[in-house]
Amino acid sequence: MNVLIVHAHPEPQSFCTAMQDLAIATLSDAGHVVQCSDLYAMNWNPVAAATDFAERSDPDYLVYALEQRHAHERDALAADITAELDKLLWADLLILNFPLYWCSLPAMLKGWIDRVLVSGACYGGRRFYDRGGLAGKRALLSFTLGAQPHNMFADESAVHGELELMLRPVLRGTLAYAGLSVLPPFAAYHVPCIDDAARAQVLAEYREHLLNLDRLEPLAMPSLADFDRYLQPLNHEVPA
Amino acid sequence: MNVLIVHAHPEPQSFCTAMQDLAIATLSDAGHVVQCSDLYAMNWNPVAAATDFAERSDPDYLVYALEQRHAHERDALAADITAELDKLLWADLLILNFPLYWCSLPAMLKGWIDRVLVSGACYGGRRFYDRGGLAGKRALLSFTLGAQPHNMFADESAVHGELELMLRPVLRGTLAYAGLSVLPPFAAYHVPCIDDAARAQVLAEYREHLLNLDRLEPLAMPSLADFDRYLQPLNHEVPA
Repeated sequence: MNVLIVHAHPEPQSFCTAMQDLAIATLSDAGHVVQCSDLYAMNWNPVAAATDFAERSDPDYLVYALEQRHAHERDALAADITAELDKLLWADLLILNFPLYWCSLPAMLKGWIDRVLVSGACYGGRRFYDRGGLAGKRALLSFTLGAQPHNMFADESAVHGELELMLRPVLRGTLAYAGLSVLPPFAAYHVPCIDDAARAQVLAEYREHLLNLDRLEPLAMPSLADFDRYLQPLNHEVPA
Repeated sequence: MNVLIVHAHPEPQSFCTAMQDLAIATLSDAGHVVQCSDLYAMNWNPVAAATDFAERSDPDYLVYALEQRHAHERDALAADITAELDKLLWADLLILNFPLYWCSLPAMLKGWIDRVLVSGACYGGRRFYDRGGLAGKRALLSFTLGAQPHNMFADESAVHGELELMLRPVLRGTLAYAGLSVLPPFAAYHVPCIDDAARAQVLAEYREHLLNLDRLEPLAMPSLADFDRYLQPLNHEVPA
């Protein structure tokens, strides 16, 4: 399969970068084709702006998503966006590889989402969740964080609640929304505090995760079949 | 009180900008002092990077939060960060005003969080949630989104689930984590599709929200008093 890794860490020697390098090696050795977008190395521009469009539907008033759709139809998206969108459409698997900043993506990576997940190409109208523009592709989050494992994010009684709920805007509101099948994320815990042996162990676990992607059950996500044309939940119960 | 509005929208004529302007007028008229950071107008740099620090604890290996703490102690943060941090520390109320992009903050605003909520000043060690560095201050999200009201985010049976759960990384993982008391957010629904009369109605409702801040019950958030020194939840039940 074709794999796109989007990596965003300000330190090239970081453990997070080692995770990216391991994914490249592991997936290439397994016969897959891997491309990387190292956003810091690329000096990626994360700011959604009017300059993203060579031609505008409404030159006087910017509604970003509407202009995405318009520019996508007319091949008028900025060159840096088009290059990333081409990689995304080429990929069967998207890996977002990053340090967790404030329980979410670093701005650098959020700006890749904002600019590259183009309306018209990746979603639009009734094309979302299982009918999203990227349906048939898979996505994986791989990230580092400072918290200790099975402690701060273990479940809803933990101090920060359940990890997958904290990640909902990315897992569900972004990846699943655009049609991607979302694999269980790989979290590298406590990274600033652990020794080299513990880091090697985490990398070995990540390698196993990557080699077993086909055996991982994707996360449960909404299906539009369960909602009516007004997006109200269908009541499958028989009225009394 | 002192109010800081951080605003991030790429269209100066947007409805979101009208919400910012209304907040400035309403709160100023009520006798408060208001400052604004209009991030697009300021050409704010949202990318956390090594260049944010004039002096480094470890010049060879960047751990962003550790260098924030080090630079904050030595007055070695980049000038744009210091200016925003000063405004934040001055404020009694922080309003984040933005269009919801991918169920979360636009990258421009996420990068304000990443860079300005400085470790050492806003949190650090055991200083988080109700012991966070910004304890005593309040925060409010005011945002626009395309979805229809009371439909897509009404509750967990809705197509996108409950709005406050989708916003958890901001409400809880960021604002409450840093010690802020988080007021119920104000969401302006369906903005791209409604007419001028409906927009005027939304602005009138936002004005009411702003004039009644003291009567709004802050969202329930974790208290560190409910967790032990290892951050495990305390068991208040009497063993059998």
